[in-house]
Amino acid sequence: RERVRRVIESAWFQRAIIVVIVVNAATLGVETSPEATAAYGSVLHVVDHAALYVFVAELLAKMYVYRARFVLDPWNLFDTVIVAVSFLPTAGGLSVLRALRILRALRLISVVPSLRRVVAALLTAIPGMTSIAMLLGLVLYVASVMGTKLYGATAPEYFGDLPTSLFTLFQVMTGDGWSDINRRVMEQHPSAWAFFVVFVLICTFVVLNLFIAVVVSAMEE
Amino acid sequence: RERVRRVIESAWFQRAIIVVIVVNAATLGVETSPEATAAYGSVLHVVDHAALYVFVAELLAKMYVYRARFVLDPWNLFDTVIVAVSFLPTAGGLSVLRALRILRALRLISVVPSLRRVVAALLTAIPGMTSIAMLLGLVLYVASVMGTKLYGATAPEYFGDLPTSLFTLFQVMTGDGWSDINRRVMEQHPSAWAFFVVFVLICTFVVLNLFIAVVVSAMEE
Amino acid sequence: RERVRRVIESAWFQRAIIVVIVVNAATLGVETSPEATAAYGSVLHVVDHAALYVFVAELLAKMYVYRARFVLDPWNLFDTVIVAVSFLPTAGGLSVLRALRILRALRLISVVPSLRRVVAALLTAIPGMTSIAMLLGLVLYVASVMGTKLYGATAPEYFGDLPTSLFTLFQVMTGDGWSDINRRVMEQHPSAWAFFVVFVLICTFVVLNLFIAVVVSAMEE
Amino acid sequence: RERVRRVIESAWFQRAIIVVIVVNAATLGVETSPEATAAYGSVLHVVDHAALYVFVAELLAKMYVYRARFVLDPWNLFDTVIVAVSFLPTAGGLSVLRALRILRALRLISVVPSLRRVVAALLTAIPGMTSIAMLLGLVLYVASVMGTKLYGATAPEYFGDLPTSLFTLFQVMTGDGWSDINRRVMEQHPSAWAFFVVFVLICTFVVLNLFIAVVVSAMEE
Ligand code: NA
Ligand code: NA
Repeated sequence: RERVRRVIESAWFQRAIIVVIVVNAATLGVETSPEATAAYGSVLHVVDHAALYVFVAELLAKMYVYRARFVLDPWNLFDTVIVAVSFLPTAGGLSVLRALRILRALRLISVVPSLRRVVAALLTAIPGMTSIAMLLGLVLYVASVMGTKLYGATAPEYFGDLPTSLFTLFQVMTGDGWSDINRRVMEQHPSAWAFFVVFVLICTFVVLNLFIAVVVSAMEE
Repeated sequence: RERVRRVIESAWFQRAIIVVIVVNAATLGVETSPEATAAYGSVLHVVDHAALYVFVAELLAKMYVYRARFVLDPWNLFDTVIVAVSFLPTAGGLSVLRALRILRALRLISVVPSLRRVVAALLTAIPGMTSIAMLLGLVLYVASVMGTKLYGATAPEYFGDLPTSLFTLFQVMTGDGWSDINRRVMEQHPSAWAFFVVFVLICTFVVLNLFIAVVVSAMEE
Repeated sequence: RERVRRVIESAWFQRAIIVVIVVNAATLGVETSPEATAAYGSVLHVVDHAALYVFVAELLAKMYVYRARFVLDPWNLFDTVIVAVSFLPTAGGLSVLRALRILRALRLISVVPSLRRVVAALLTAIPGMTSIAMLLGLVLYVASVMGTKLYGATAPEYFGDLPTSLFTLFQVMTGDGWSDINRRVMEQHPSAWAFFVVFVLICTFVVLNLFIAVVVSAMEE
Repeated sequence: RERVRRVIESAWFQRAIIVVIVVNAATLGVETSPEATAAYGSVLHVVDHAALYVFVAELLAKMYVYRARFVLDPWNLFDTVIVAVSFLPTAGGLSVLRALRILRALRLISVVPSLRRVVAALLTAIPGMTSIAMLLGLVLYVASVMGTKLYGATAPEYFGDLPTSLFTLFQVMTGDGWSDINRRVMEQHPSAWAFFVVFVLICTFVVLNLFIAVVVSAMEE
């Protein structure tokens, strides 16, 4: 065990894993081209399987070395889930699952120390944002129910049902093309500008404060 | 009175109110679907009325317990207004009032402590913003009067009258599709780019400073 | 002189001037409606002229009281320029000059202390921004010359000549509809994405740092 | 050598170089107009060549004065590269190289001290951003491979192959017209909103933190 531990913690081993991840990410990228798949399909297939075996072997080695401590490191769970996705059955036209194989490239985050540190820092920012995010979600839900009730009949492509309204108002929240939607709705509801302007102002104000909360908490550290 | 006070201040009572608000928000969401309303309309109606009775009973209990102090807490006034909206007559096709019932979901803000704190923090940021907001409003008004005078005759869909210009320039201020409007106006007024570019630069600069004012005042606390 | 000074520095006088400015701004807003102008044209005309006489009288009184010190206060120059605009000849179809009368509403800035303070603060932020603004202008000019040379022949509506390119790339800089322009240019120049992506990244990065420069200098105060 | 050094370090010499750069930038701007080129083509050509000779002479003088130290100043390398671009052969329809001559205007950055300082400050911000930029690039790559696999067949204009997907998702990352693309893809994949909303949220969150990292590191200085 001690010898295996020294191997998997050595710098060259980690660099080798990074190379495998990058090569695998590249072959999955090449696979998106039907011509390349037709020409080199079998090579790509072999590289993909080899990479998967390497990842499984690495995980098994870590489990053997760290035992119970393995599950204490959330990054190990992250790696396990990503590798496990590749073993789900892809029959039955589940092209989504095949597309998820590229998530393996995210293993770079757990292997490259600087990425790992950045993501850890991003995650520590989340707790300070949950309350404001909940508030935004509540505003979005209330506005969507109102929008469906008021404009569902006359602008069904934007407010036809609750999920459609939620999507439309999420779009308005990001500021992308909100005025086109508003002008479309105002054809039949001339006072709809009030609904949209109030929603845009509230969202801008809350997002601004979400932003400030993150800046201030980042400063305190 | 003391016993009632202990009940309405207990943790389980507040959790029960949160459950009622969430259930009521969910039924109002389901009600946006005509199929669901056709199938379960009477159930939704009963839940909606039951929730309203709970809110009224809660408010009456608080009035009984806190008496004069009831009106001192602005959140009580907030709750009262939101509940009162549900008792306005909805006859005469006032579908807007029926749509406003979903505002009851905003009662979550006054009941969940973390949301309450966030909104209180947002409100304290407002006084420091009023001067810059007034300045933005003044710039918007002046630009709208100028825009209506200059482009009202040739681009009536954007600058036909003062309210239309105010809406158009609010849209330009948010940066959404301003260049489409500008290119449309420049077909007849080749020098209109100056009007728009100056307006965009001034707004961006003022909004940037609005932002900074909020960050700096947030830091000082 | 002392008595005149006491009058123009009194609180009620300043409040009266504010009222005159607001009323004048309102009448100029009403004047944008042809119907209202047809119905109340002469009243609006009288109010407009009366307001102008009040502003002239106020300026003359200040000149009489402060003499040489009058020109030392930049706000007095600001007021004088705005009032002087109204005396330029509006004959010869110079509708632009008539539209500029609404600039009088900006006199609110020099009269209302809180607006005055905000604008003064905004102006102090400008010196710290000139270098970065010059850099942005240089990048914009260089990219516009390149864009005109490369895409002027094939996408004349966006890059036909240097002024058109400057406008197009200012639009790209604000992020409004840049990808539509890019997709249009890529029809004939498949590698144009590199030009646009580099330009967007440089502008975003420079604007971000412009922003930070302002925040940091605001903090130091 | 000492005399040459005194000349090229004198204030009037540097001002003269700035004038040459600005004049050259102006002539290259005028050259974008076919009419102006037809009328003054030979004059523009002479000015352009004269400016180039001045820049070469300046570089040679600096090499003669500073010798080995010349290559130690990165700004000298910057100037040399920009001037060298003008000596690349422009035959064979390489209009791109001719368009690159305007890059000489960027020499202003190395000559004007305030611009030089600003750009130096911008460059110091880059190392603190590389990790987050790598993370963004990784997210962009993973999402592009997934997008090509999932939507390549049904929305080829946006996700037809990997480069197209990379461009489309870069566009989504900047927030420009992302909802149009999403609505187009949702015609055939009703659940595509999840892909886009998750991508928009992750990018917004990471960019926000990129931003904060730069602000915080700017504060520390
Ligand atoms: Na936008
Ligand atoms: Na947009």
